[in-house]
Amino acid sequence: MKIVLDAMGSDNYPVPDVAGAVQAAREWGDEIMLVGREEAIQQELSSLDLTGLKLEIVHAPQVIEMEDEPAWAAREKKNSSMHVGMNLVRDGKADAYVTAGNTGGVLAVATLHTLRRIQGVRRPALAVILPLPAGRAVALDIGANVDCRPEHLLQFALMGTIYARAVLDLANPRAALLSNGEEPGKGNALVKETYKLMAGSNLNFVGNIEPKEIMGGHADVIITGGFAGNIFVKTLEATAKMLTDLIRDEIKASPLTALGGLLAKPAFGRVARRVDPFEVGGGPLLGVNGVVIVGHGRSNARAIKNAIGQARKAVQGRVVETIHDGLTRTKE
Amino acid sequence: MKIVLDAMGSDNYPVPDVAGAVQAAREWGDEIMLVGREEAIQQELSSLDLTGLKLEIVHAPQVIEMEDEPAWAAREKKNSSMHVGMNLVRDGKADAYVTAGNTGGVLAVATLHTLRRIQGVRRPALAVILPLPAGRAVALDIGANVDCRPEHLLQFALMGTIYARAVLDLANPRAALLSNGEEPGKGNALVKETYKLMAGSNLNFVGNIEPKEIMGGHADVIITGGFAGNIFVKTLEATAKMLTDLIRDEIKASPLTALGGLLAKPAFGRVARRVDPFEVGGGPLLGVNGVVIVGHGRSNARAIKNAIGQARKAVQGRVVETIHDGLTRTKE
Repeated sequence: MKIVLDAMGSDNYPVPDVAGAVQAAREWGDEIMLVGREEAIQQELSSLDLTGLKLEIVHAPQVIEMEDEPAWAAREKKNSSMHVGMNLVRDGKADAYVTAGNTGGVLAVATLHTLRRIQGVRRPALAVILPLPAGRAVALDIGANVDCRPEHLLQFALMGTIYARAVLDLANPRAALLSNGEEPGKGNALVKETYKLMAGSNLNFVGNIEPKEIMGGHADVIITGGFAGNIFVKTLEATAKMLTDLIRDEIKASPLTALGGLLAKPAFGRVARRVDPFEVGGGPLLGVNGVVIVGHGRSNARAIKNAIGQARKAVQGRVVETIHDGLTRTKE
Repeated sequence: MKIVLDAMGSDNYPVPDVAGAVQAAREWGDEIMLVGREEAIQQELSSLDLTGLKLEIVHAPQVIEMEDEPAWAAREKKNSSMHVGMNLVRDGKADAYVTAGNTGGVLAVATLHTLRRIQGVRRPALAVILPLPAGRAVALDIGANVDCRPEHLLQFALMGTIYARAVLDLANPRAALLSNGEEPGKGNALVKETYKLMAGSNLNFVGNIEPKEIMGGHADVIITGGFAGNIFVKTLEATAKMLTDLIRDEIKASPLTALGGLLAKPAFGRVARRVDPFEVGGGPLLGVNGVVIVGHGRSNARAIKNAIGQARKAVQGRVVETIHDGLTRTKE
């Protein structure tokens, strides 16, 4: 398998990006193509032990930065690491593309300039893999489409189900609609209309779901429009950060609680490992003609390595081919 | 001041409800009218020290239960503690109504059967007071209106600003729109249209806001449609519960971390006090002809007491009168 890693993706590129790629190459033995400014990548690699690894550098002179306006950058920076990297996948020279870069940029480059939509897909969707105490769940769309129609959400459900089967190894993933109440009549107009479509499909639809039940692992595929989905994911992230910061500060505030915190440290470590997004690494952009995994800008090397792991599973699970077949063969 | 407390509100009514009312009567010296089944209230009061307190029981034979369908219950249970209690406010026999009961029931009874909307209010909105490390903020709507138009959100902003001035003691509250990005062009169609209305108003509009910045205290009044608002509040609550449960479990998992947890306990107590919703007690239903405070079903006596405290401030701050004046006098 050949995986393209955008070396110019994360907030601190190329340091964690290159280090994560090296970890992945060592762990799985795949060939990793590092795309970006050759000199910067070369320099980063020079300090690492590369014995026996299959690494290739593909030069791309431009970088889509985090603060770039996505549509503009996708149009104007045609030699960016995103363009060059995704074109390698489009042209069959690589199997997947992984980046921790500007999410809007990834969307624009993938859908408008390089890979483009799978035939029959109305709207590509950005998914996140939620690490929950009860296991993992896919949630989509989390921001690619802020205004959606029910038919879009039905396709998100199909694509999310295919991903959950292939990557989360679930035989019959339970799909649920994010809503403000579990009863069938609950939800805004979009949710109510989508509910009918989902109930009439051959997906394993388990009804509406609220955040508490998502955390409790009551569904495997969480379907939502991109606006509410974005609020959901960002609120989860912000609350977790607020609470952990607060706990850290208050524990440090007195010598006795600081000692307690020191003794309890392994417990905090276990908590982090059970719900750490960096253990997942990234979420897929579903509905484009190629495996694309998008990681968090704050990714460290471990997160990058795990994002590459997501890409491997998506390739092995034939996610893109299955979505293509699912959309052309049946009307689910 | 006379405050009506729905004795049949919380999940464990009338125990925490009556106990909280007694605490409030003692702390602030107000007259509390306990509305509900007389015998049950009487029995609950019999075990408490009531010396010097101004308490009155108003009998209401019916109860709107948590599992009742709101519109049906509001129509059919005309002698419920909600109807009787809110009619006391409507008829000028009390200054405010406080309940930890069925939220949909409160909405239906208030808007359709008893207090009704303030003239000029398009949609009453349910608000929550967020206890954040940096201070308190009002967020609305959190579920009364799942499908909103921009004009509704503009009124929510006006009502929320009035509440923040009166109850949170802020001279010039900063109002912000919950969105998927901070830049002016971000948001779904509703947010983008509302942005223009807000920018053209004389409110202290500080632009779009994301969950992370809400937690950081970057705005005092958070404006959102009821669907996204509900997802926001419930995700915050569910994430906090998931994390605290997980930390508790992992700390208990070994003797050493359990000892650490014991020593660190005061720190956890300080965290809880800084972000505990029960310290706030409840949020207002804004836009109806009377002060209505709605607490969480899981409220304990302290939460009920604090919800009564919210009601006192709303009455003292003349929230209802100010909303009325704000809507009839100016087009903000």
